[in-house]
Amino acid sequence: MTERTRLGPITLEEIVEHHKGGKLSVVSKSPLKTRRDLSIAYTPGVAEVSRAVHRDPAMADTHTWAGRLVAVVSDGSAVLGLGDIGPAASLPVMEGKAALFKEFGGLDAIPIVLDTHDVDDIVNTVRLLRPSFGAVNLEDISAPRCFEIEKRLIDALDVPVMHDDQHGTAVVVLAGLINAAQLVKKELSSLKVVVAGAGAAGIAIAEILLAQGVEDVVLVDSRGIVCRERDDLNTVKAAYAARTNPRGLVGGPKDALKGADVFVGVSGGKVPEDHLTELANDAIVFALANPDPEIMPEVAAKYAAVVATGRSDFPNQINNVLAFPGIFRGALDGGATRITPEMKTSAARAIAAIAAGDGLRSDHIVPSPLDGRVATAVAHAVAACSSDITL
Amino acid sequence: MTERTRLGPITLEEIVEHHKGGKLSVVSKSPLKTRRDLSIAYTPGVAEVSRAVHRDPAMADTHTWAGRLVAVVSDGSAVLGLGDIGPAASLPVMEGKAALFKEFGGLDAIPIVLDTHDVDDIVNTVRLLRPSFGAVNLEDISAPRCFEIEKRLIDALDVPVMHDDQHGTAVVVLAGLINAAQLVKKELSSLKVVVAGAGAAGIAIAEILLAQGVEDVVLVDSRGIVCRERDDLNTVKAAYAARTNPRGLVGGPKDALKGADVFVGVSGGKVPEDHLTELANDAIVFALANPDPEIMPEVAAKYAAVVATGRSDFPNQINNVLAFPGIFRGALDGGATRITPEMKTSAARAIAAIAAGDGLRSDHIVPSPLDGRVATAVAHAVAACSSDITL
Repeated sequence: MTERTRLGPITLEEIVEHHKGGKLSVVSKSPLKTRRDLSIAYTPGVAEVSRAVHRDPAMADTHTWAGRLVAVVSDGSAVLGLGDIGPAASLPVMEGKAALFKEFGGLDAIPIVLDTHDVDDIVNTVRLLRPSFGAVNLEDISAPRCFEIEKRLIDALDVPVMHDDQHGTAVVVLAGLINAAQLVKKELSSLKVVVAGAGAAGIAIAEILLAQGVEDVVLVDSRGIVCRERDDLNTVKAAYAARTNPRGLVGGPKDALKGADVFVGVSGGKVPEDHLTELANDAIVFALANPDPEIMPEVAAKYAAVVATGRSDFPNQINNVLAFPGIFRGALDGGATRITPEMKTSAARAIAAIAAGDGLRSDHIVPSPLDGRVATAVAHAVAACSSDITL
Repeated sequence: MTERTRLGPITLEEIVEHHKGGKLSVVSKSPLKTRRDLSIAYTPGVAEVSRAVHRDPAMADTHTWAGRLVAVVSDGSAVLGLGDIGPAASLPVMEGKAALFKEFGGLDAIPIVLDTHDVDDIVNTVRLLRPSFGAVNLEDISAPRCFEIEKRLIDALDVPVMHDDQHGTAVVVLAGLINAAQLVKKELSSLKVVVAGAGAAGIAIAEILLAQGVEDVVLVDSRGIVCRERDDLNTVKAAYAARTNPRGLVGGPKDALKGADVFVGVSGGKVPEDHLTELANDAIVFALANPDPEIMPEVAAKYAAVVATGRSDFPNQINNVLAFPGIFRGALDGGATRITPEMKTSAARAIAAIAAGDGLRSDHIVPSPLDGRVATAVAHAVAACSSDITL
């Protein structure tokens, strides 16, 4: 598949030209045209606000931009499907993410890209930056470091922290699966689910499905089924080898797919067509690798009742933008200091409900990423959970 | 002096109300309304830009916002005249600074406030953040740590780094002194200058004056004249004890002022009126402490031919905003990797030239902080120096 085909009528030159000077801009909400303006927004007036924040630290959330500011933090180690291209090259993605936070969540966001892959360095840096913002969206950080970084930052900071490649993806996958299961008249919890890819997204998908009561989840990585028998697993995968794969499957992806109701691909690896012959009736295939799905949807449709991809040019686009703007907006609106499993589930149900409300079809299990109703619904669902948190 | 008098008709409530939600906002320069928009600014199009930056790192400067983005970095240890109020309480000031960068320099800027006073932590954090921005404005960091932090960051980073409390102030003081000396018909280099305050601003003022060939500079701190005889000086002050005070003065501020042509106050301490009787004829007094000058200008005017303060409600406001937006704009326009002494001097001469072009008067030695011509003139002067740099 050539660039031209993938991007449709958009040329590479057009994209590069569009990015000249970057995609973000900082603007002042205060006029600065008169001495009076300067006296209010800068000296001497600003001293009164600094004094007030010093006396009452809670005013940092209400009288600076930091309380509603999301830091989009990356080390550039796992950027899109491009891999470890480094922090500078990750910036266009982080700028895009920040733009999406504004467009869909109404939140300010700034890219923070770090010139290190060291877990301690990343955790310490974000910790020291804490007063600069009100929430942390971790982005495009490779597994398994992303798990430890997220966990340590959640523990260290009193603001919402979420690694979007894990949980944003998992939330939208769950939303899609809720509706797909409805369509094929199977119980969510009874589904046999194969997740190809045991990195950030794969692990988080397994986790959110287990939390939903899905008992039969099988993870597959590049070396085959994640199972107790393997001695080449990192500690995270080893933990999931114990918590998933209840039938004790061993072998490769084709073995995993035997009788499976659902295939979720977040690996970037290819799935040969003959593997899909192993699927159960009325199967569901989410081939989410971007830009090249694990299997093309027109092929998958021969063996599955519902097919989704990560791409905007096919039906059923499973895209994180359905989740993260509303999740962060809801967490901040609700005054939450962390993003809980319940919030993620509520977000997924809110996304699913919008598509269901429009009328479910096999080519409409999730709303369009451009659907302006989604972030608002997700934010309300998440904010409603916030009040229940006690820390 | 009450708040009310200082702020004129502006009330405290009005200022606090104005700061609700903060003063800055991030906006997307890319539309995000259609699938095509998303395909260009986000996936899959953005991958092409990330790939391009990965191949050619120089494109990070031209095709992301980072190349023109100034990080306004503070630890909140020396905020205005408020002292060590911490990073969160410093945020309103840093937001104001970022807003001024945009208004006068046309540059995007973001506040980065750090929850540490440790020099190594601050240097390491900014170093790790390097790919996130194109220049560093250090702000409101207490002396003497500010000297080491600035020096180490200049050495570590390949982008312009400047501690504005030092050099922004020094540049505008030099601009004012050039014109004041002209008015009183004295040679700049022959002036006897007393600088009260040997912190960030005082040291930088001494340095820029020495670089201009001013031979007789005397620093005074809270314990008296900075001289070789003292054993209570930090290493920075000790170095300037050796480089300044050529007449070997000892004693207090009154001893320093005997026969002095210029008093520059950047200390916040008070100067009793009788001290000013010691000044030479046609003296120059810059009482720059904010909001309360070391001596009120109407009093100083009895003993000096030219008087300036840091306040907007008196003539001759010596304000950093005349310098920093143009200095950073010029350095970035010129592709400079550091801000040189020559750039600072050129900036001062550009500022002075604008006031001189309007016609010098004792109440007009510097342009208004709102004068839109200044940043452009400073940027051109600084950019012209940039091309001479070899590293």
